[in-house]
Amino acid sequence: MSSASSSTTSLSLQPTPPVPHNLGGGSFLIAWQLKDKQVLIVGGGEVASQRIESILAADAFITVLSPAKGVHVRTRQFIDAYPARITYYDRRFSGPAEIHKMDMVLTALDDVNRSRDICEMCREAKVPVNAADIPDLCDFYFGAQIRDGPLQIMISTNGNGPRMAALMKKKIGEALSGKEGEAIEKVGILRARLKDRAPGVGGLLGRKRMKWMSEVCNTWDIDDLTELDDALIARLLDQGWDKSVVPTLAQLKGVHKSKAWSLGSNQDWAMLLPLVGSFALGAVCSFALVRRR
Amino acid sequence: MSSASSSTTSLSLQPTPPVPHNLGGGSFLIAWQLKDKQVLIVGGGEVASQRIESILAADAFITVLSPAKGVHVRTRQFIDAYPARITYYDRRFSGPAEIHKMDMVLTALDDVNRSRDICEMCREAKVPVNAADIPDLCDFYFGAQIRDGPLQIMISTNGNGPRMAALMKKKIGEALSGKEGEAIEKVGILRARLKDRAPGVGGLLGRKRMKWMSEVCNTWDIDDLTELDDALIARLLDQGWDKSVVPTLAQLKGVHKSKAWSLGSNQDWAMLLPLVGSFALGAVCSFALVRRR
Repeated sequence: MSSASSSTTSLSLQPTPPVPHNLGGGSFLIAWQLKDKQVLIVGGGEVASQRIESILAADAFITVLSPAKGVHVRTRQFIDAYPARITYYDRRFSGPAEIHKMDMVLTALDDVNRSRDICEMCREAKVPVNAADIPDLCDFYFGAQIRDGPLQIMISTNGNGPRMAALMKKKIGEALSGKEGEAIEKVGILRARLKDRAPGVGGLLGRKRMKWMSEVCNTWDIDDLTELDDALIARLLDQGWDKSVVPTLAQLKGVHKSKAWSLGSNQDWAMLLPLVGSFALGAVCSFALVRRR
Repeated sequence: MSSASSSTTSLSLQPTPPVPHNLGGGSFLIAWQLKDKQVLIVGGGEVASQRIESILAADAFITVLSPAKGVHVRTRQFIDAYPARITYYDRRFSGPAEIHKMDMVLTALDDVNRSRDICEMCREAKVPVNAADIPDLCDFYFGAQIRDGPLQIMISTNGNGPRMAALMKKKIGEALSGKEGEAIEKVGILRARLKDRAPGVGGLLGRKRMKWMSEVCNTWDIDDLTELDDALIARLLDQGWDKSVVPTLAQLKGVHKSKAWSLGSNQDWAMLLPLVGSFALGAVCSFALVRRR
């Protein structure tokens, strides 16, 4: 994620691909920042508990309004587990005064008309709002999500079936090794250390830093990146950045083995088993045939 | 994506997994709704052109403010290609009056101080704002995105390096066949036809519809779903929904072959080649050994 580099004055001379003419029909997918912001959740049921989990992941303060009888067991667990983050009131939503200090409002009510009223108040007060079950009132929707440390992925089917979003989530989850989050974290640490060593914002140095970091990410695979510890990061900066090169992990460790013939992991061996089995079967069959003659 | 079903009054008796205690550190990933909303983009450079593309995908109206000399060739192409969606003014941002009719503001300026001023005006007017290059001023960030028709995927590394987001995007892109968007579209059509056949909101029928749709998505694979045309959808509803079963595509087409032994695709054959090769090699080696004796 980035807030991206801007360039209003430079006119690029590179050819640009033609502009697509069939855009539209989608949503605007964004990573909303809620750190220490105030979020009101009206309702305490199962949907409210799902909302609480998403909101806690973004470090907001949460106010939950719901009569105790409507509080789901999981909502209760969250309230108990995060006392510094969640304030719970055993009562119903009382009116527009509840909204004005809020940065975001989510309703999770069975009563569509009350949800509708709250949404109108939010629109009036210009507070972003999502109403469970009433898509046309929502400023934003949710999608299926994958989280692995600093890595967050959202999958939206733009209303064409939550089941398909769940299937896509499964498919994408299977394509990931589960080490990506750790690798991204390590890259974040490497970036910070590099910035300590070569400080300053933007300019030629900034571009050089960005290029070197990209090169590291392109050269090292995910498993390699997860191995970055304090010592290896220092060595990578000494033997890499300082010399304007990007050594491989093997070079950095002083190991020079040809990658193609290293069969280190169990997975590599597992891939060979069918081949070995076929070879043996071929040998046995051939042997049996020859002996029979 | 869904705005999700609510349930404030029902208390679940199923055991719930323990509440995670290490939430936090992430963003709140959402699909913002911009259909026919007003979005102001201040700046016309390369970053502005990227913003325009994302915003057009969500069917908003766009106002671009930038002196002509700062307009990137791609920004110009978008302005020319979408005259009904984009209004361009050859001038600089003039003051808070520009903001009040807006639903969202994005700055893409080289001048950090002007960006900062605009962000403050937006915060005052409670208009969501993103400033390129100034993360601490942003209400929201962007992530790497994949789009395939109704399927949208966003990948965020929460600021730990845009290169890693791009790598994750590549990895996820490779895990998808490219037919997912079409499959999701077809599922959307099937859902709409089913709702025509068995109309009504919520209740027992709503749950039955949801369950049957889930079953279809679970039983049929992505390639099967893309084959759904008007005739097949009608047959699926007649022979499936009306009889409370979920036939396979093969059953619907009147074809009954055992899937496990069908080796139709080139990929299936390609997978067998190494095994056949190993078998042959084993046979030859064994034969040679026996003959030598």
